[in-house]
Amino acid sequence: MSEKGSVVIDLKFERRDVDRALSGALSGRKVLHASDKAADLSSASYAFLWKPDLDLFERAPKLKVLFSGGAGVDSILATPGLPNIPIVRFVDESLTTRMSEWVVLQCLSHLRQAPAYLVQQRARFWKELHQPEAKDLTVGVMGLGVLGQDSARKLKIMGFNVIGWSRTKKAIEGIDTYDASQLDAFLGRTDILVGLLPLTGETRGIFNGSLFSRLRQNGALGAPVFINAGRGGSQVEKDLIAALDAKTLGGASLDVFEHEPLSPDSRFWSMDNVIVTPHAASASDVRALLRNAEVQMGRFERGEPLQHVVDRTTGY
Amino acid sequence: MSEKGSVVIDLKFERRDVDRALSGALSGRKVLHASDKAADLSSASYAFLWKPDLDLFERAPKLKVLFSGGAGVDSILATPGLPNIPIVRFVDESLTTRMSEWVVLQCLSHLRQAPAYLVQQRARFWKELHQPEAKDLTVGVMGLGVLGQDSARKLKIMGFNVIGWSRTKKAIEGIDTYDASQLDAFLGRTDILVGLLPLTGETRGIFNGSLFSRLRQNGALGAPVFINAGRGGSQVEKDLIAALDAKTLGGASLDVFEHEPLSPDSRFWSMDNVIVTPHAASASDVRALLRNAEVQMGRFERGEPLQHVVDRTTGY
Repeated sequence: MSEKGSVVIDLKFERRDVDRALSGALSGRKVLHASDKAADLSSASYAFLWKPDLDLFERAPKLKVLFSGGAGVDSILATPGLPNIPIVRFVDESLTTRMSEWVVLQCLSHLRQAPAYLVQQRARFWKELHQPEAKDLTVGVMGLGVLGQDSARKLKIMGFNVIGWSRTKKAIEGIDTYDASQLDAFLGRTDILVGLLPLTGETRGIFNGSLFSRLRQNGALGAPVFINAGRGGSQVEKDLIAALDAKTLGGASLDVFEHEPLSPDSRFWSMDNVIVTPHAASASDVRALLRNAEVQMGRFERGEPLQHVVDRTTGY
Repeated sequence: MSEKGSVVIDLKFERRDVDRALSGALSGRKVLHASDKAADLSSASYAFLWKPDLDLFERAPKLKVLFSGGAGVDSILATPGLPNIPIVRFVDESLTTRMSEWVVLQCLSHLRQAPAYLVQQRARFWKELHQPEAKDLTVGVMGLGVLGQDSARKLKIMGFNVIGWSRTKKAIEGIDTYDASQLDAFLGRTDILVGLLPLTGETRGIFNGSLFSRLRQNGALGAPVFINAGRGGSQVEKDLIAALDAKTLGGASLDVFEHEPLSPDSRFWSMDNVIVTPHAASASDVRALLRNAEVQMGRFERGEPLQHVVDRTTGY
């Protein structure tokens, strides 16, 4: 048996991507796949999880550290039989950069009225629309972790006014920030709301009709816009559809949904002012995941503290 | 008669926008409208032009300085009877910021496959597509004036590799630049080509089939993308359509066309991988135009040199 702890892989990603990333990675460690039902996982020390099997923790009772395959850990925390061992969050430059690409794309799409221009394009209709510029709008980012902070910084460089909200107040240079007790003040300044929140008891259903009605009305876009790339469980979709119908919201970009994949019956697919993407805003790069985890395994085996450990009391 | 030179306005913008901007501007100067055919323009010193009347220069023979209402001056240079007096280009932060918004929006749209996701959305189809990230692509910006440099800088912050091309070599920190003699080397590295060129004898028809075929093939997007927000006269539209049909180009974003408004018969309107906007990438803000011109009139009347004067030998 190797001196280095062995590893269970239980990532419901494309198997091909996982295999490609594993080649040459986790050097010196035994790698086991949870999908191989005959594999003996009883002495494994580490597990990589994304949508784990329900019997994983029975099959692997000696796990010491869990590695989340995605930025959010709500599904792992909800897994029955989860052992009380450290869970390491996946923090990666590529994950962050891709999320910011998506967030900036969506904010610019609504600023520059891409949905309305597309309707005109399909009608072969040439007409310039009234055009506010980025500095006429304020983007409010809810969730100021690594992803939220990077998006906020890039939105500011694109010219938007940017403000931020998080459970506990964060200090970010050049950006006015608000904490849980100041939600109304934050919403009242926000023309484009960007959700990058983890799913916890406190954030479940937070994006509801009451919240939408408190966003700034009469801003430069006419009505506020809602963008969510955090978790679908944070949004109340019947409220969202009602707000879009009532023009309390002028548009939305949604990458996450209460139930995924989004049902073919959902009205979101066919709304001209709603942009739907299939939980694709940011994809975990498996190579980066393994690379980051190897650093943490090394620290753990040398007796150094793990980094990016999930706080179970806050849920992220 | 006022001591300050009088001003002729011949801007074919929305009259309402011009009137709103004029209220409170050009203080102490007589303002005349070329559209008022009874107005006596014979002693006017300055003219604001965008698509000027053909008889303007006969009616106003004492003009000393012309102010262009847009960033491009090709249409002014082509006006019959143009007097040999300085033409001041419109350089404005707002004009620049809006252009960069549009350019970054289009680059991110193609990077993140917005056209393909939209087709899926309309088909109510949930499927994640293969996703390169910005650092896997190189955006090549042709035209490195104020607009090109600002776009290049912001694209780089969004994570793209960025290179630039201009007639004479420009030095821009962090960006490899090429001059007229190095076009092939520039094109061979370019996955997304952004055109921000003025229309001159040298740039007319520069975006043709031969140029498209020299862009990098087999890049991370599969086929290169063409984005033009400069001038329609720089692109050969039959070559562009042929390149899109042959998949020499994988997509395009076009704000300018050989003939504007774009004919309802154009195939561009209906191509899924082409994004059409109605020459709306950057709009001149009339207030900013007047504000900038007042600075220049003040300099001129104090005997100081004008800034942002067009070089008629290069055409921009």
